[in-house]
Amino acid sequence: MSCSCMLDRRLSIRQYGLLMQTDKKTPPSLETLTGLCKRRGFIFQSSEIYNGLNGFWDFGPLGTELKNNLRDAWWQDMVRNPPLGPDGEMLDIVGLDSAIIQNPLVWKASGHLGGFNDPMADCRESKARYRADHLMVYLPTSGEGTAYAFLEGEPAVAEKRIRKAKSDTANFSVVPFTDLPLDQIATVWGPDATKAGTLTEPRQFNLMFKTFIGAMSGEGEDNTAYLRPETAQGIFINYKNVVDTMRVKLPFGIAQVGKSFRNEVTPRNFIFRSREFEQMEMEWFCHPDEASKWYSFWVEARLQWWASLGVDMRNLRRRDHDEDELAHYSTACADVEYQYGFTAPGFGELEGIAHRGNFDLTQHQEASGVKLEYFNQETNERVLPHVIEPASGLTRGVLVLLNEAYTEEFVPKGDTGGDTLLAEPGSEAPEGYEKRIVLKFSPRLAPIKVAVFPLLKNREELVKKAKDIFAELRKTWPAFYDQAGAIGRRYRRQDEIGTPFCVTIDFDSLEDDTVTVRDRDSMRQYRIPVSELKSWLFEHINE
Amino acid sequence: MSCSCMLDRRLSIRQYGLLMQTDKKTPPSLETLTGLCKRRGFIFQSSEIYNGLNGFWDFGPLGTELKNNLRDAWWQDMVRNPPLGPDGEMLDIVGLDSAIIQNPLVWKASGHLGGFNDPMADCRESKARYRADHLMVYLPTSGEGTAYAFLEGEPAVAEKRIRKAKSDTANFSVVPFTDLPLDQIATVWGPDATKAGTLTEPRQFNLMFKTFIGAMSGEGEDNTAYLRPETAQGIFINYKNVVDTMRVKLPFGIAQVGKSFRNEVTPRNFIFRSREFEQMEMEWFCHPDEASKWYSFWVEARLQWWASLGVDMRNLRRRDHDEDELAHYSTACADVEYQYGFTAPGFGELEGIAHRGNFDLTQHQEASGVKLEYFNQETNERVLPHVIEPASGLTRGVLVLLNEAYTEEFVPKGDTGGDTLLAEPGSEAPEGYEKRIVLKFSPRLAPIKVAVFPLLKNREELVKKAKDIFAELRKTWPAFYDQAGAIGRRYRRQDEIGTPFCVTIDFDSLEDDTVTVRDRDSMRQYRIPVSELKSWLFEHINE
Repeated sequence: MSCSCMLDRRLSIRQYGLLMQTDKKTPPSLETLTGLCKRRGFIFQSSEIYNGLNGFWDFGPLGTELKNNLRDAWWQDMVRNPPLGPDGEMLDIVGLDSAIIQNPLVWKASGHLGGFNDPMADCRESKARYRADHLMVYLPTSGEGTAYAFLEGEPAVAEKRIRKAKSDTANFSVVPFTDLPLDQIATVWGPDATKAGTLTEPRQFNLMFKTFIGAMSGEGEDNTAYLRPETAQGIFINYKNVVDTMRVKLPFGIAQVGKSFRNEVTPRNFIFRSREFEQMEMEWFCHPDEASKWYSFWVEARLQWWASLGVDMRNLRRRDHDEDELAHYSTACADVEYQYGFTAPGFGELEGIAHRGNFDLTQHQEASGVKLEYFNQETNERVLPHVIEPASGLTRGVLVLLNEAYTEEFVPKGDTGGDTLLAEPGSEAPEGYEKRIVLKFSPRLAPIKVAVFPLLKNREELVKKAKDIFAELRKTWPAFYDQAGAIGRRYRRQDEIGTPFCVTIDFDSLEDDTVTVRDRDSMRQYRIPVSELKSWLFEHINE
Repeated sequence: MSCSCMLDRRLSIRQYGLLMQTDKKTPPSLETLTGLCKRRGFIFQSSEIYNGLNGFWDFGPLGTELKNNLRDAWWQDMVRNPPLGPDGEMLDIVGLDSAIIQNPLVWKASGHLGGFNDPMADCRESKARYRADHLMVYLPTSGEGTAYAFLEGEPAVAEKRIRKAKSDTANFSVVPFTDLPLDQIATVWGPDATKAGTLTEPRQFNLMFKTFIGAMSGEGEDNTAYLRPETAQGIFINYKNVVDTMRVKLPFGIAQVGKSFRNEVTPRNFIFRSREFEQMEMEWFCHPDEASKWYSFWVEARLQWWASLGVDMRNLRRRDHDEDELAHYSTACADVEYQYGFTAPGFGELEGIAHRGNFDLTQHQEASGVKLEYFNQETNERVLPHVIEPASGLTRGVLVLLNEAYTEEFVPKGDTGGDTLLAEPGSEAPEGYEKRIVLKFSPRLAPIKVAVFPLLKNREELVKKAKDIFAELRKTWPAFYDQAGAIGRRYRRQDEIGTPFCVTIDFDSLEDDTVTVRDRDSMRQYRIPVSELKSWLFEHINE
């Protein structure tokens, strides 16, 4: 684009509230995203016909494909073909799939039974229950009065909402609830900054879901078990089995994808914090002397991986934990954070990379009485490996992909191609343009790779040819057949679910055996011989 | 093979207890299979370092890949590219992934809360607990005496064991425990046919695992929830969401793969009956008038699918349920059964195809108050679809694949190729032969597709070239690198985990850039230029 064009563009951008294509997209609101996900079959409220179940979600047909694609991408890039190590060497990582219900002794040894708690405080009057560590108190700076406002939410959001509720912010400071002496916590305001009440002292609440194993033996200590709150411990307890059977040598990794369950007190923000969710965790076992090197390596590698999926680096950041945030056994921890729509301008967690030392293996070695040392035959050395843990949320990753893909654009009317204009969500189209919502998934992650349309549904020969092509394409890719409505509307429907390519069979196709392939992002159309269609798609889908 | 060779072969077969290559293989015992699975990293006892947890299993690195491959094969052949229908038409099936914990009203409506029970009987003396419907009673035909033997197990196994324990079988008949009048059940013998005791009247025990949702609200009716005992109900409660969002038309299917949990009283037979397991279920919604046609279609299609994975048809059978086995709402049900090692000569369940009528949709429609009728715009007809359900065990499928793949063969010593002799498990090798254990997975299902070996590990140029080739191959396939021990031993290790192809880099490779590819089943070796290696493997792995 020349300089003067750029100037024109900037002018119309100012006029219509448009964005430059190089601008960072404004993330969609949670309402926008939740609405799209429900409307287009990505994610439904769980048990919806029974009015749902708080903290649980069901993945619809497209959400399932999207989630599976992210799962498979992680598995491919972490287990089957991991990144090269810091010295360019190949890494060795194997997969695992352990049970959700494990021997309860696992959770005793890991510390989850004793320490995996959230502090909870109740409002005496409204009976509402809050996570004490999520409460922010609005404190008069004068020191007078005992009335405080509190709000629940991510700290940044809470603060914003408090300041909005109280216009005379100058006379107040915002303090975490848990930092206050209890006798100061007398009267409080509810999350909507209206209801008044008083809060109880926080109590500890264990986040693990409990269940009971075995027949008719009643519910008691003896047969109590727990749904795993993380997949990681399933790896630690199988570490010896893997060493004994898989010919692995230090350093090596064990990776697992699977469901975890946390009885969150306040599940919220769509699938960001749900009670049932999926994780992608890898435990990297290495010599203690090298742990620090591997920690740095994995933090950087994981950040790069998310970027490799097409996530805008401006929406990602590395946040190193402060020393007082670290668990007692951990020497370092960093989060890969993402700027979700509901955290903006702040960031929220996507993945954590923890230097766990030898804490877990030590705990399980002591509790089980089974030696977990690694024996190096070459050096004759026995060592309890240290562990670097990149632990990522698969469910949360889906939310990131949706956030990142969601785009509102103005396109020239009639879908004739031409320049598109990136829009602020919710703004109106300029003259001659219409708005389109498009999910710009990378082809690797798109739920449907290709859609096939006959130009008209009432012309048998078009329908037959389209179905023949569809039958052939669906052998290789998740494909979709649609014959309803005008082509333009069919394009829009595919745009909204992120299908990268649409193939249209028209009357020319019957003559010369070519089809039109339309590219989602550029909206360009290519005329491709049917005989070359598969290889054309193969090239573009695997770009 | 000529006639005289055949004769020679038959002679040595008789002499050494060998089998013809066309003979049906003798299935391995459960002990053999469990041992191999543990030794080679397929399946471990769950929480093994804590002495396990009865009814739970962890999938090791190879078991995870195998299970994922079976899962993906089902998804590909049922969702992405289902079989053609009875009239040659393309079928429309979409995926789903619903939560394990659902609103408890789901289980009330489905009947699982009231009726998903097993009858349990206790031994008053030993306190042992048995599934009453698995007990067989050894009844003196004379009618005299009240002493009966009972055994627990699959009916066929139980009967065999009883007859073994009692040599004078002529005077006894074997009767299911539940067929006897209660006053006849006085004295019994335990499963090992030694201990004496008396049995209580059977009581009903619900098989669903219970849990509690929410913080600090105690454990009570209000917040009790259940882990799903099947994935199917997650489909029924999302049926309306799918119809509303996915442009599906009757008939269509919704498919789901995922974990289910059943608090089995007597988990056993390795992963055949475990408390946590995975299912692959599809609900096919169709017009009531066509349900019968679709039922026949799916029974046959599912049987053929298992055969398409390389399962010997002689080990598969269709068993139609008797009328008195059917649930009251069901008009037909057939099992795909497999001859497991532990059921032989009998068969055990692998998949069930049920004609469920409109029972589930009726129940959920009534309980939720949400209309679940399908509206056909073309005929203006509203109809509550009927459902055909092919419900398969993924965990159980892995057991079938392992059973089916396990082979003991005698091979000419030195791994020089030549004819192999199929052996009865446990028999000794004839002179000039040695035994090999080989898992003959189809390449599509094999956990590792290709292994790469440098001929010698202490020759840097061989190692470097082997690693370069490995690095290239692992981008495309699950691959394994091994440089330890003699080539023959490395082949055997790969045979035992079912790797179809091994690539060896030798001194000639350095000269002419070719490698040796060794085929697992025929043990033939091919000399392939490195430049053609990927396409050669691609062709043979995707055969």
